[in-house]
Amino acid sequence: GDPLVIAGRTFRSRLFVGTGKYPDAATMQAALERSGTEMVTVAIRYMDFSDPRGGDILAHLDLSRYHLLPNTAGAYTVEDAVKMARLAREATGTNWIKLEVIGDRETLLPDLSGTLEATRILVNEGFVVLPYTTADLVTCLRLEEAGAAAVMPLASLIGSGQGLVDWTSLRRVIERVKVPVVVDAGIGSPTDAAHAMELGAAAVLINTAIAKARVPALMAEAMRWAVIAGRQGFLAGRIPRLEGASPSSPTAGVPL
Amino acid sequence: GDPLVIAGRTFRSRLFVGTGKYPDAATMQAALERSGTEMVTVAIRYMDFSDPRGGDILAHLDLSRYHLLPNTAGAYTVEDAVKMARLAREATGTNWIKLEVIGDRETLLPDLSGTLEATRILVNEGFVVLPYTTADLVTCLRLEEAGAAAVMPLASLIGSGQGLVDWTSLRRVIERVKVPVVVDAGIGSPTDAAHAMELGAAAVLINTAIAKARVPALMAEAMRWAVIAGRQGFLAGRIPRLEGASPSSPTAGVPL
Amino acid sequence: GDPLVIAGRTFRSRLFVGTGKYPDAATMQAALERSGTEMVTVAIRYMDFSDPRGGDILAHLDLSRYHLLPNTAGAYTVEDAVKMARLAREATGTNWIKLEVIGDRETLLPDLSGTLEATRILVNEGFVVLPYTTADLVTCLRLEEAGAAAVMPLASLIGSGQGLVDWTSLRRVIERVKVPVVVDAGIGSPTDAAHAMELGAAAVLINTAIAKARVPALMAEAMRWAVIAGRQGFLAGRIPRLEGASPSSPTAGVPL
Amino acid sequence: GDPLVIAGRTFRSRLFVGTGKYPDAATMQAALERSGTEMVTVAIRYMDFSDPRGGDILAHLDLSRYHLLPNTAGAYTVEDAVKMARLAREATGTNWIKLEVIGDRETLLPDLSGTLEATRILVNEGFVVLPYTTADLVTCLRLEEAGAAAVMPLASLIGSGQGLVDWTSLRRVIERVKVPVVVDAGIGSPTDAAHAMELGAAAVLINTAIAKARVPALMAEAMRWAVIAGRQGFLAGRIPRLEGASPSSPTAGVPL
Repeated sequence: GDPLVIAGRTFRSRLFVGTGKYPDAATMQAALERSGTEMVTVAIRYMDFSDPRGGDILAHLDLSRYHLLPNTAGAYTVEDAVKMARLAREATGTNWIKLEVIGDRETLLPDLSGTLEATRILVNEGFVVLPYTTADLVTCLRLEEAGAAAVMPLASLIGSGQGLVDWTSLRRVIERVKVPVVVDAGIGSPTDAAHAMELGAAAVLINTAIAKARVPALMAEAMRWAVIAGRQGFLAGRIPRLEGASPSSPTAGVPL
Repeated sequence: GDPLVIAGRTFRSRLFVGTGKYPDAATMQAALERSGTEMVTVAIRYMDFSDPRGGDILAHLDLSRYHLLPNTAGAYTVEDAVKMARLAREATGTNWIKLEVIGDRETLLPDLSGTLEATRILVNEGFVVLPYTTADLVTCLRLEEAGAAAVMPLASLIGSGQGLVDWTSLRRVIERVKVPVVVDAGIGSPTDAAHAMELGAAAVLINTAIAKARVPALMAEAMRWAVIAGRQGFLAGRIPRLEGASPSSPTAGVPL
Repeated sequence: GDPLVIAGRTFRSRLFVGTGKYPDAATMQAALERSGTEMVTVAIRYMDFSDPRGGDILAHLDLSRYHLLPNTAGAYTVEDAVKMARLAREATGTNWIKLEVIGDRETLLPDLSGTLEATRILVNEGFVVLPYTTADLVTCLRLEEAGAAAVMPLASLIGSGQGLVDWTSLRRVIERVKVPVVVDAGIGSPTDAAHAMELGAAAVLINTAIAKARVPALMAEAMRWAVIAGRQGFLAGRIPRLEGASPSSPTAGVPL
Repeated sequence: GDPLVIAGRTFRSRLFVGTGKYPDAATMQAALERSGTEMVTVAIRYMDFSDPRGGDILAHLDLSRYHLLPNTAGAYTVEDAVKMARLAREATGTNWIKLEVIGDRETLLPDLSGTLEATRILVNEGFVVLPYTTADLVTCLRLEEAGAAAVMPLASLIGSGQGLVDWTSLRRVIERVKVPVVVDAGIGSPTDAAHAMELGAAAVLINTAIAKARVPALMAEAMRWAVIAGRQGFLAGRIPRLEGASPSSPTAGVPL
């Protein structure tokens, strides 16, 4: 009753999952299964194009179940990101791309100007572009104007598990941008996933918080419920935050 | 596989629900149903003891499905709280009591010394006492020594929806107290419920955040998944919070 | 123009300083000097009563400049705290006492019931009692009723430097209690000191954040200005926090 | 002993002050005086270039005391910002410019790509450029590479008084960028000013929090001490934040 639509494709699950960092393929498969996800992202750098099945990772993914979202992780220039996207399209047949143009090797933060430029190029070439960005409102508005199918602002540094360090900026992007906003990077726990969804995010993308949890498959299921809880909470309309108390029970009328 | 046990009784759901503030009985019933709860709390002040069925609220509760937890909301002295507890036991047959001894009419914050004293009296009289308290570690330890079956620290002012304003104190209580810690009061959204559970709380008690949501039944379901998500997240072992980034994907080995 | 009055005594400085943990007496003396403080607290456990001058610490304090506030650090029972207070009065001649009744050896959090009881005893014996407490509103109101000359809620665990982890509770105490509220324990930096004062605290007490800073005397001076800044900010009336932007400059009328 | 140097010019005060929003010129003059500032910013849109003295605001500023920093508030394109900067240089003789290229009329957030482009143009024309930006690390690094004399990341939306909503990003910029980092916009109180300086900011720029305080001149002085306190605190080396308690006083050796 509440599907997510990106570029004309419908998803029932609002949890997107990454495929890096799992201890082994079986653990990854179990986590994907338990998460209920319908979209997985794979680093193009991980794909083995000499292998007709697309290399290790792709060999372990049942692409009849999961929509594939190749990503340009590791691209530090517009040129490299565009080249990776084209390679991925040729090899996998999908024109969807999670675009990353990284601007700093230490923090892996995006180069916003470069991301905007690469988005324009790839949209022009017929890609469905989901760019990784910070929660910078003006950049997100420009990405939307450039034809991005969704925007993917980070919650905090990738892999940091710090959660939504600046949720006011995320909320602002969600309120102003019309394409789906997918919160990406930094989610550390189910609470963070619920938080992003409660703010009105269309979906969240999670990798490290599942793959490096003590029990990945159980955490994947936790994230599944957290995303549903946050989405339902958003739709159900939360109570306002009050400065003072408001009793649940009558404070007069003692039956004594 | 992960039941909650309080005073020898087992609960599969870790979500306790209050019965105040609903627009009508049907809305309350639908919310309780959707929440999956197995324990509901009712203000003794709401009970109509002249009615053989226990008054309005009790008439609308299917007590074959829900374990009844009467509460002493509105008691401002040890004497009143004790008197209410005895009345409730006589009228409803249960010896469970959510003990509230309020110390301030404006904030409805508990009187910690009075709560400790009333706990001692009621435990002595054979009650199963779940006292409402702040997240004051020393008070919680003393309540446990006094025989409380659980402790119920508040997250923030009752009905305020402010969430876990001092989660470090809650976590400290959870780590040190051996009886179940049920986070009570102040939870405003599914994110807050998940947060409490992720810290290791045994359960949460929610009233206003469900009853006064725009769509109470949907919010009740949201809270159900949030509590499960938070509990599973706690059991699955979250990743550490890092200062810096940690890439999900390899940053070397370009396939270009 | 804005003096602090406690029990009839006037202080121009709103910064109280502790005397523990300094690397040596000269460093302590320099820090006290630079801080501008007029009231210093000394642990009674540190006083050497066999020494006619009151032991090491007292020998190094110029009590013509600093008002002495003995404290009962290390007392775990009402009896010990009361005994220490009497000893201190006999030895030093002052009837001022910073009352600490600790309830937990690991966190050094106060025993609120015991603190209340000891306050009643000591007020009755003519002491000027400044009890160490948590920011529990009901306890602070009861301490005031019991005759405390001020209340000293903690900002966070002693020595933790975590700052005001629950500033909403501190603000609530400040707004409701009529005696001076002195924020004690947990202040880690000038920002924290300014924060406490901006909320309307009457004064702050700082020890570890000065004594264990890399340059104690410079940090002492930083705290001096921070307390003045926070106090002036409180008196000057800060702007409201707004959700949206409000331009500093006109956005129309271009001179182009 | 700790001067701030920007583009070869030395400032003893690390508090820069804006000139908008004051109720009248006398209030502004008193606030500037009490703040101890040595650099004031004036919107070029406020300058009346038909007036040989530069219009109302400039007529009220003693430019022998304050270094003038014209700003391009209200510029929504690179072209307008550049045009304003040239106009200001012609009219006032200074080649310093606080560059603002706004990307959104509702939030007044900067257009980062446009800001970068305008910085390149103005540096090339010999301006000393201090660009207004978000705390986006990659943008700040690029601004520095482009020749910015300082970078001026916002703490929160201009005029909002929300303080440092994402201080981790600000700290990251401060740690990585070599030119002075001046925290601009969003500071609401002395606590916020101290916080920015404690993180290691070179200076702060404040307007609304002083101009719209209940008592502007007193708030200006509060900000003066807050900036000094925060700077000294940064230099003095704060204590680490600890999870647990650390007693100020000995917990053994009772003198009883």
